[in-house]
Amino acid sequence: MTGPVRIRSGVPGLDEITGGGLPANSLVVISGDPGSGKTTMCLQYLFMGATQFNENGVFISLEETEEEIVRAASYYGWDLASLIKSGRLKTITVELYDFDKLKNTIEDAVASVNAKRLVIDPGVIFRLYFERELDARKRIMSLGRMLKRLGCTAWITNEIALDAPMSLFGLEEYVADGVVLMYHTKYQDRFVRSIGILKMRGTTFSEKLHPMILTEHGVHIFADKDLFEQAPPAAANAGKGRGG
Amino acid sequence: MTGPVRIRSGVPGLDEITGGGLPANSLVVISGDPGSGKTTMCLQYLFMGATQFNENGVFISLEETEEEIVRAASYYGWDLASLIKSGRLKTITVELYDFDKLKNTIEDAVASVNAKRLVIDPGVIFRLYFERELDARKRIMSLGRMLKRLGCTAWITNEIALDAPMSLFGLEEYVADGVVLMYHTKYQDRFVRSIGILKMRGTTFSEKLHPMILTEHGVHIFADKDLFEQAPPAAANAGKGRGG
Amino acid sequence: MTGPVRIRSGVPGLDEITGGGLPANSLVVISGDPGSGKTTMCLQYLFMGATQFNENGVFISLEETEEEIVRAASYYGWDLASLIKSGRLKTITVELYDFDKLKNTIEDAVASVNAKRLVIDPGVIFRLYFERELDARKRIMSLGRMLKRLGCTAWITNEIALDAPMSLFGLEEYVADGVVLMYHTKYQDRFVRSIGILKMRGTTFSEKLHPMILTEHGVHIFADKDLFEQAPPAAANAGKGRGG
Amino acid sequence: MTGPVRIRSGVPGLDEITGGGLPANSLVVISGDPGSGKTTMCLQYLFMGATQFNENGVFISLEETEEEIVRAASYYGWDLASLIKSGRLKTITVELYDFDKLKNTIEDAVASVNAKRLVIDPGVIFRLYFERELDARKRIMSLGRMLKRLGCTAWITNEIALDAPMSLFGLEEYVADGVVLMYHTKYQDRFVRSIGILKMRGTTFSEKLHPMILTEHGVHIFADKDLFEQAPPAAANAGKGRGG
Amino acid sequence: MTGPVRIRSGVPGLDEITGGGLPANSLVVISGDPGSGKTTMCLQYLFMGATQFNENGVFISLEETEEEIVRAASYYGWDLASLIKSGRLKTITVELYDFDKLKNTIEDAVASVNAKRLVIDPGVIFRLYFERELDARKRIMSLGRMLKRLGCTAWITNEIALDAPMSLFGLEEYVADGVVLMYHTKYQDRFVRSIGILKMRGTTFSEKLHPMILTEHGVHIFADKDLFEQAPPAAANAGKGRGG
Amino acid sequence: MTGPVRIRSGVPGLDEITGGGLPANSLVVISGDPGSGKTTMCLQYLFMGATQFNENGVFISLEETEEEIVRAASYYGWDLASLIKSGRLKTITVELYDFDKLKNTIEDAVASVNAKRLVIDPGVIFRLYFERELDARKRIMSLGRMLKRLGCTAWITNEIALDAPMSLFGLEEYVADGVVLMYHTKYQDRFVRSIGILKMRGTTFSEKLHPMILTEHGVHIFADKDLFEQAPPAAANAGKGRGG
Repeated sequence: MTGPVRIRSGVPGLDEITGGGLPANSLVVISGDPGSGKTTMCLQYLFMGATQFNENGVFISLEETEEEIVRAASYYGWDLASLIKSGRLKTITVELYDFDKLKNTIEDAVASVNAKRLVIDPGVIFRLYFERELDARKRIMSLGRMLKRLGCTAWITNEIALDAPMSLFGLEEYVADGVVLMYHTKYQDRFVRSIGILKMRGTTFSEKLHPMILTEHGVHIFADKDLFEQAPPAAANAGKGRGG
Repeated sequence: MTGPVRIRSGVPGLDEITGGGLPANSLVVISGDPGSGKTTMCLQYLFMGATQFNENGVFISLEETEEEIVRAASYYGWDLASLIKSGRLKTITVELYDFDKLKNTIEDAVASVNAKRLVIDPGVIFRLYFERELDARKRIMSLGRMLKRLGCTAWITNEIALDAPMSLFGLEEYVADGVVLMYHTKYQDRFVRSIGILKMRGTTFSEKLHPMILTEHGVHIFADKDLFEQAPPAAANAGKGRGG
Repeated sequence: MTGPVRIRSGVPGLDEITGGGLPANSLVVISGDPGSGKTTMCLQYLFMGATQFNENGVFISLEETEEEIVRAASYYGWDLASLIKSGRLKTITVELYDFDKLKNTIEDAVASVNAKRLVIDPGVIFRLYFERELDARKRIMSLGRMLKRLGCTAWITNEIALDAPMSLFGLEEYVADGVVLMYHTKYQDRFVRSIGILKMRGTTFSEKLHPMILTEHGVHIFADKDLFEQAPPAAANAGKGRGG
Repeated sequence: MTGPVRIRSGVPGLDEITGGGLPANSLVVISGDPGSGKTTMCLQYLFMGATQFNENGVFISLEETEEEIVRAASYYGWDLASLIKSGRLKTITVELYDFDKLKNTIEDAVASVNAKRLVIDPGVIFRLYFERELDARKRIMSLGRMLKRLGCTAWITNEIALDAPMSLFGLEEYVADGVVLMYHTKYQDRFVRSIGILKMRGTTFSEKLHPMILTEHGVHIFADKDLFEQAPPAAANAGKGRGG
Repeated sequence: MTGPVRIRSGVPGLDEITGGGLPANSLVVISGDPGSGKTTMCLQYLFMGATQFNENGVFISLEETEEEIVRAASYYGWDLASLIKSGRLKTITVELYDFDKLKNTIEDAVASVNAKRLVIDPGVIFRLYFERELDARKRIMSLGRMLKRLGCTAWITNEIALDAPMSLFGLEEYVADGVVLMYHTKYQDRFVRSIGILKMRGTTFSEKLHPMILTEHGVHIFADKDLFEQAPPAAANAGKGRGG
Repeated sequence: MTGPVRIRSGVPGLDEITGGGLPANSLVVISGDPGSGKTTMCLQYLFMGATQFNENGVFISLEETEEEIVRAASYYGWDLASLIKSGRLKTITVELYDFDKLKNTIEDAVASVNAKRLVIDPGVIFRLYFERELDARKRIMSLGRMLKRLGCTAWITNEIALDAPMSLFGLEEYVADGVVLMYHTKYQDRFVRSIGILKMRGTTFSEKLHPMILTEHGVHIFADKDLFEQAPPAAANAGKGRGG
């Protein structure tokens, strides 16, 4: 079998730990602890896509306004406002009450900028809209299928915590092509950030957890290093953890 | 007592840890953590059955479309599309609302390709259809009995997680002939994959957990090795974990 | 006080760890993890009783059909079909909806083969039939009393798991004369089987957990050995774990 | 303050760990794991009281019949039947539906044999009779007060388990003069029995857990020994654990 | 800032671990495990206040009668009956159904003996009176405010257990000036008693847990000692744990 | 990207661990264990702002009265009464029933003293006002947005405990610019205080937990020290833990 067509994420280290880069058109669930950098990495993915790899993008937000999204990105020096103005990026803030309307909104947005990259943030909010787990399950998988038909490499975020992981109801298990886990946990006297790949179809991937940091340039993953119990190496300490 | 008639699964190492191979016509529950490779191993089982051992098969999906199933298999080089075309495999996507209709659908599918292998994936979704545990229990056991009358060696998947195992309500304990557990758990700084046999009627089986990997050829179980706390041996590292 | 009249279970090692054998007419609760061998041991008890010790028996099943029970026993070479034919064993599959009818059914079955041994499997299903815990408690204790009046040595199974033990509501504590625990738990890289006596009236018993195995001849308990953390001795390894 | 008037329980070792014996007229809650020997120790208390210390007694059972109580005691050679016949002991089996009737029943029984010792077993069943915790609390404390006015030294049993201790709602904390804990827990490869005093008004008491065994003569507490992690001393092994 | 006016509790060691004594007019929550000595310490506080420090007191009981309170204190040689007679102490047993009536009752009682010390025992019962957490929260804080206006140094008890701490709904966090924790936990083969100060406004306090014992003279705290894992020192062993 | 405009908190050590000081106009969630010093640090922040840094402030209390707030601050020598009188600080106690009214109240208060600093305490009470999690989520985020439009650097407190962290529903994850965690946990024989930054947009921050103490001058954070397992250094011991 020939290797898949891969995209370059623009997130240092991520391509390396996914065997060379995410397969194009994958649907990836990004699950992470609070403050682990999920949203930051998503913004980085879109910004780099538009500025470095000629891939336009769409940010579907279920909670933040465009202004808030632009401001969040600005902390890292990512000028989303210009990209929005020049039609390379589009942000949409949606209400989820009307699930069918959501699908149309997403399709239109993708078409409007001819997007190749897509982010939905946060995915966890889906579960709040359905009483029966069975309905949530079907709707979310239906959404996942729609996303994959769009011809984008789509990321959907999920917030987890050690005590009550909020599953996206079969999305991770069946429809998603990949699942990435971002940890930000207290270990003895510090918070330790790490990232691991739970699943990624169509490619080999690292089975380890890798240290990662948040710098003033966004997320940085150390693909060559295992997770230490002591302080991460000097290179990481230079740009101490920054963003949200 | 003479030994049972056994099938050859086609999954490297699985036959060895089940005392020489699964007894024919067994009903086996495949329980696994998210991303542990349950669905991959099921596809491998059907593909190998059809191409290597002249056993046609049926894949009953409760969540995925035929297209998705075919694509998932293609990542491993398993061309299910041809097998479906040539009548050696059949995939059915069913709604579970009508439980009786489900039984008929399965029976018809098995007959249509004279199947000897059967997969139902995911089994866990049964529990979402019944309010009273007693009803779920009876229906699922009734389904299990029907499966055993079909003359197939049937696998039914179940998703588990360390905190809330979702039992298939007596299916494992009474009707199922075997229960296989696939672990994919975080241990220190890596994810470790392992497989064990909880129960298998009619044959001896290994009481240990065995390391396993996902390669570009599917699931590979190390029947000769115990589970190490450190990195698995070189042979495993060559084809690093792939699929989903 | 003179020693009690004891029965010989026919399960190797069980009589030794119960001070010489279960007191006749005891009501014993057999609690075990999934796949621990509860049902196997019950079938062994009945088969040995009928073929070795001239004690006929009744198997009351709340979930399995006679055919399934006979097949399950056949894996161990226990020909229940002949015993049923010759009136030495009787199996009954009952619905629990009508609790009073259950009692009559049991009494009739015991009388019909003049049974001295009785098994009810699984006992856990009782709790699904009652809304109020108080009702469940009273009904089950009433059933337990009825069983003791039958003049049989009766075993009733209960499924437990580490996180949510399903108690038989006072049955173990007050009415049952004995409680046997069968463990089948993951320990490091293997599954370990063990058995222990929590309670047994009228006799001394071992306060230890003993290793046990499932062989092609059924359950085998090592009365002389303590539970090791490493592999059980050579004698055990010869017939590696088999049944369900 | 002068020392209290004490009773002699008749349970070897119990008087020693309660600073010389339970203060007369105490209300003591006996909390224990399943199979820990609560009921046995209560029967021992009553039997010894009637035969050794000229204190008649009443056994109030909320679950067992007189016949079952007598039989349970007979395993230890305690002939309760004779004591009942000669008016030295009385057993009553009560329904708890009518809580006020319960009180009258108890008062009458105590008067009828001029009892100085009283047992209520099991106390845990109280909580099943009340919807609101507040009502349960008031009723149980009211019962406790009534018991103390009777001029008996009263024991009331409570079943506990490590995961969900069933509290007797303030009884232990406020009304009860003493609380005794009986453990029967799995430790590595054996079951270990121990007993400890959580609280005892009016006297000093041991703050340690003491090993205890069940022999053919009932409960035996080792007041002079601390709890070992290894096997209890030879004296204990002679009469291996018996009862219920 | 000048040091606060302090009271002398009369409980040996308590003043030392609260930086010299509780600030006068503080509202302190005394939280403790069952049998930890909360009520004993409260009685000691009132008795010493009336006999040693010329501070009259009021004991508001939500569960015990005056007779029971007096008896509980008598075990330690504290003659509350005389103090009640001479108008130095007052005990009130209240129903909580009418929360407003409770306030009036407390105010009247304090005025009647010109109390400077106040105890409410047990505080935990408040939560049973309100359906909505918001109402419980408001009422309890309102009660706390009323207590502080009375010009007393008030103690309110709370029962906690390791698995389900019953919080007094913001009382500890906002209205209470201090929170004292009394532990009575099983550690290996013994019960260990300790006390610690979680919070105390207006003064420094020890951040450690200190060993404590119950003697025939009440609670005794070892302010100079840290908590050992082995037996407490000889001085403690002399008067072995007594009370309730 | 130029560095952000920063404020000086006035809490020793806090500016250092937030990379030089909180970015102006941030919304920060202060989450802490009971008794960890959240409210104390908030009062310190406002007092120092008004007296040292010429930034007026508003304290929005959802539970305490102005009198209680003033008194709580007085323990540290912070004279809020004068600041209120001179129009440099304002305290408001609000009912949350009318959420829209809350917003107006806050806006008016901020305008009335031209506040640059704002505290809402406790934020946790929001969750008690909404039945559906979705509503709570929207309202709280709407409040958060309003706070950020006010041109203040706003702190909102949240009470957490190890077993059931009460999340402010997406506020921390999306709207809040920063999250600070204050621990006050039992470790062996003492209570240990520590503080860490989970998230802070627009600046680097320390990824470690730092020891902190409560002294008679308020909260003091040791920015230069890691968290020790043994006693904190001498400087900390000098002013032993004080406040609430």
